[in-house]
Amino acid sequence: MDETFGQRLQERIRALGPLCVGVDPSAATLALWHRPDSVEGVEFFALATLEAALGSAAAIKPQVAYFERFGSAGYRVLERLILEARDAGVLVIADAKRGDIGVTNDAYASAWLDAASPLGCDAVTVSPFTGVGALSPFFARARGGRGVFVLAATSNDEGRSLQRARTDDDVAVEDLVLGSVAEINRRDEGLGSLGVVLGATRDRPRFDLASLHGPYLVPGVGAQGATPEHVGRLFERCPEGTVLVNVSRAVSEAGPERSALRDAVRRWRDNLSTFL
Amino acid sequence: MDETFGQRLQERIRALGPLCVGVDPSAATLALWHRPDSVEGVEFFALATLEAALGSAAAIKPQVAYFERFGSAGYRVLERLILEARDAGVLVIADAKRGDIGVTNDAYASAWLDAASPLGCDAVTVSPFTGVGALSPFFARARGGRGVFVLAATSNDEGRSLQRARTDDDVAVEDLVLGSVAEINRRDEGLGSLGVVLGATRDRPRFDLASLHGPYLVPGVGAQGATPEHVGRLFERCPEGTVLVNVSRAVSEAGPERSALRDAVRRWRDNLSTFL
Repeated sequence: MDETFGQRLQERIRALGPLCVGVDPSAATLALWHRPDSVEGVEFFALATLEAALGSAAAIKPQVAYFERFGSAGYRVLERLILEARDAGVLVIADAKRGDIGVTNDAYASAWLDAASPLGCDAVTVSPFTGVGALSPFFARARGGRGVFVLAATSNDEGRSLQRARTDDDVAVEDLVLGSVAEINRRDEGLGSLGVVLGATRDRPRFDLASLHGPYLVPGVGAQGATPEHVGRLFERCPEGTVLVNVSRAVSEAGPERSALRDAVRRWRDNLSTFL
Repeated sequence: MDETFGQRLQERIRALGPLCVGVDPSAATLALWHRPDSVEGVEFFALATLEAALGSAAAIKPQVAYFERFGSAGYRVLERLILEARDAGVLVIADAKRGDIGVTNDAYASAWLDAASPLGCDAVTVSPFTGVGALSPFFARARGGRGVFVLAATSNDEGRSLQRARTDDDVAVEDLVLGSVAEINRRDEGLGSLGVVLGATRDRPRFDLASLHGPYLVPGVGAQGATPEHVGRLFERCPEGTVLVNVSRAVSEAGPERSALRDAVRRWRDNLSTFL
């Protein structure tokens, strides 16, 4: 069979470093770039960020919300970004945080992971509020070469009380997610392609992070306060090529000038590579 | 100020009954309707379902996943459905279950609740995995007349262990959501427009359901197994006009024939009205 997402991601990280460039065309960032808060502004930002990421980032991560706010016109821009990234050989992780009951998740998984879908990406982020078991339609796509990142511990403070709540088996929700994903990866169903989102701003969970058998997607670095050094310590025993660190605002604040943006990407890549 | 979503919903339920018709153009349902699994099939299904709901249902609830699987073309159909429903005076609840950290939620809230957005609906469903506090951009739109339904207990079994997990204050996650939403409604910020999704297939939570000061959106009736009688018992002490019951498959399985579909809507409305 073809390479799995887990394998492809690991190769990219080894070759290019552990940086994932977030593509977050928010109103605030477009204003900083002196671009209109419109689909045209979003398109300019998205394609410029992709260009800056080429050859220096293992993946890009468009935040779907910033495209969705322009409805179908915003999604047309996202489709173009996905297509151009694919042509350029850049991995695309849709930060969609989708999650519903099983039968509905099959439709979401089809939207974000099927090759025939106009939004088909290499991987997607999903939310386990309806239960990790309900996410199986996403996991099923891992056999077809796609990847999934399940939210375990998000980078924001408000998430703690829920994500640290304890189940009947006295396991914290974040550890339940980590353990469930690790188990599916171990059974080989995940093929090392099921990952977890773990905020760099959060404390170390009880789960042994080195035993996930899959990749981590790590937000919270840069504008949200965590440092590359901190990330290095948090994941110090994880296998090489399994930790992908997202940086969005700390890159985009370099502004639209091509070489400045490119330099920001490389600086973050080099900085992260020192510790991971 | 203009009427709030909570007030408008209550009026609709009093006038038309407690039925919300789900608009779920899944591949399986389109096959049952002998329609292609395409944007054209989705559009036919969505508009026929809207027509059948007119005058007999308090609201419609498009399941966004079934539109999203066709990317921007699917969203164009969803935009048309929203526009036609608005013109016909039908409340539209986008079943999107969006949820992210706060700054991103502002973009999602703009997408689904702002009047200028092509996807702007009367209300949207949201997921509290990142914390109820992170949902404040959605809640802020309640002051502008929009509604929000936060997932508390979903209709599927896999959701139980997480939704029943206990926080440091020894409160179950579902009760935490219910209590937090009730508190915001009580502080008048929610204006009775912040609701909760509570599956009819689930046991009664510890929270006193009559004290939410806002509406319930109730899935799980019909194809998923719960009966109108059961819903009536679960919400027996809630104020009139605050319980909205969604039925999707049990309506759509009547097929595309106009009078059959219309009859199915009325039958469910009448059946639910007996117990609510």
